[in-house]
Amino acid sequence: MYVVLVYDISLDDNGRKRWSHVFKICKKYLTHIQNSVFEGEISKVQLVKLQRELDEYIDKQQDSVIIFKSRQERWLDKEFWGVKDDATSFFI
Amino acid sequence: MYVVLVYDISLDDNGRKRWSHVFKICKKYLTHIQNSVFEGEISKVQLVKLQRELDEYIDKQQDSVIIFKSRQERWLDKEFWGVKDDATSFFI
Repeated sequence: MYVVLVYDISLDDNGRKRWSHVFKICKKYLTHIQNSVFEGEISKVQLVKLQRELDEYIDKQQDSVIIFKSRQERWLDKEFWGVKDDATSFFI
Repeated sequence: MYVVLVYDISLDDNGRKRWSHVFKICKKYLTHIQNSVFEGEISKVQLVKLQRELDEYIDKQQDSVIIFKSRQERWLDKEFWGVKDDATSFFI
């Protein structure tokens, strides 16, 4: 399936550390397209693995991860307004 | 059509002001579901209006807005991991 993953990590004391862990985990499975946005083809099994890995780091009281799942990428059109390039990867 | 809009506004000197303008414009047309993420049903005409309004504020060298468009919402499943509520609306 094709997924879009967006996350919002609360920037409290440990927020930056959590943000960095979440970023690295997502990058193993998906393609980075915007600051806190990833996309890509992923199997159900891999998606469960991704969720388990993220579960270790996200704070369920403060952080938010939303996954949009589509059976086929062609069902979803994508438009970029403004900068298109991933200019944020240097963060990690 | 059903759309998901995610934006990333560069936080330079005027970034916070631009962020706030972009937030308010998106909120007129769509539903806020995460810090910089909106979703909702929108017509082509309204989407063009939204783009025109955003064009006045986003910095095309630095800011990024991505729109994922699906003809039907049912083609897109959504999952929340972590916090589900929109706890960020108080920013505006």
